[in-house]
Amino acid sequence: MRFYTEYLWFNTKKRCEFVLITNEVADIVGRSKVKEGIVLVSAMHITAGVYVNDAEDGLIKDISEWLEKLAPAGLAYQHHLTGEDNADAHLKRLLIGHQVIIPITNGKLDLGPWEQIYYAEFDGQRRKRVIVKVIGE
Amino acid sequence: MRFYTEYLWFNTKKRCEFVLITNEVADIVGRSKVKEGIVLVSAMHITAGVYVNDAEDGLIKDISEWLEKLAPAGLAYQHHLTGEDNADAHLKRLLIGHQVIIPITNGKLDLGPWEQIYYAEFDGQRRKRVIVKVIGE
Amino acid sequence: MRFYTEYLWFNTKKRCEFVLITNEVADIVGRSKVKEGIVLVSAMHITAGVYVNDAEDGLIKDISEWLEKLAPAGLAYQHHLTGEDNADAHLKRLLIGHQVIIPITNGKLDLGPWEQIYYAEFDGQRRKRVIVKVIGE
Repeated sequence: MRFYTEYLWFNTKKRCEFVLITNEVADIVGRSKVKEGIVLVSAMHITAGVYVNDAEDGLIKDISEWLEKLAPAGLAYQHHLTGEDNADAHLKRLLIGHQVIIPITNGKLDLGPWEQIYYAEFDGQRRKRVIVKVIGE
Repeated sequence: MRFYTEYLWFNTKKRCEFVLITNEVADIVGRSKVKEGIVLVSAMHITAGVYVNDAEDGLIKDISEWLEKLAPAGLAYQHHLTGEDNADAHLKRLLIGHQVIIPITNGKLDLGPWEQIYYAEFDGQRRKRVIVKVIGE
Repeated sequence: MRFYTEYLWFNTKKRCEFVLITNEVADIVGRSKVKEGIVLVSAMHITAGVYVNDAEDGLIKDISEWLEKLAPAGLAYQHHLTGEDNADAHLKRLLIGHQVIIPITNGKLDLGPWEQIYYAEFDGQRRKRVIVKVIGE
């Protein structure tokens, strides 16, 4: 049984940003030498998420606007009484999810035809981390 | 350590449909001979999801209407500029989630008393796939 | 390969309650003797969830109010024709998610600096269970 862990670091220029990370995850799985198993991809900061969906720019804008509609910035959140201003980023992470498990079959990410892995940053412009842990044989 | 993978195929009659798949997943776990471990059940197409909740028809209608309210079809989504018309289906998958991990204990799905596994189709009437990967001993 | 399973029981005083369980999960991982692997934490009742976010009281109130706004109690849900009154609790579980996977590295939960594990009860005042299954070496 093999366990192999790497961390991806992000420091986005904008507060909100969607970063395609399928290739980075595939490279880590390659280095792990695991041929059968799973890889966990999980955002370690509570104002960022990880999800699997389409790499289409229009859809990414739709997702971003949809998150803003359902979990808006700028409301009178109680979290902001602590001096923070990012309660919406916490809610957006809860909405989109903060981790995915990608199956590994025959040494490759076993993704569907349009599935792509994204890091979703909701409170960026600082260094933040994603754990990528491969488990298998 | 055992790894065992099967794929479930769906081709729903309606655009949106909820399909109970607990028995199919249990059968795959049976064929895997795994007695302790986990099984990943993950929708491979980006307009479908997998979730665990109650097998009660009224609730399924409530879930369907709730998804429609929070991620409505027919809005002027930017994804539709590509010729697609299913941006809402992408959002619905993000909302309900696209994968679950079911624990396996003593050779059985270790589900709570009312937990049932569902495939949630949001843009059907075509062949789509779910991966079921069993990992354990 | 080790597999180690425990169940956490909850019987909250209020209908809705958020219970911090990071230490309980860490203790189970300690008892499992697993140094490298993952732990699945999954709510076994369909009106409760498990999520990872901040241990800050104001934010927890924000999360609770946000869930109530997006999945309100008291609407004319079809599930209620069965005699139940908790359709909103089912929807809240779907929204926040019912399970997380925590990576284990060097014998410890490999969480980010602010990540805390929460049990989210949406229809409490009865005994309900969470499975904690550790897998690794």
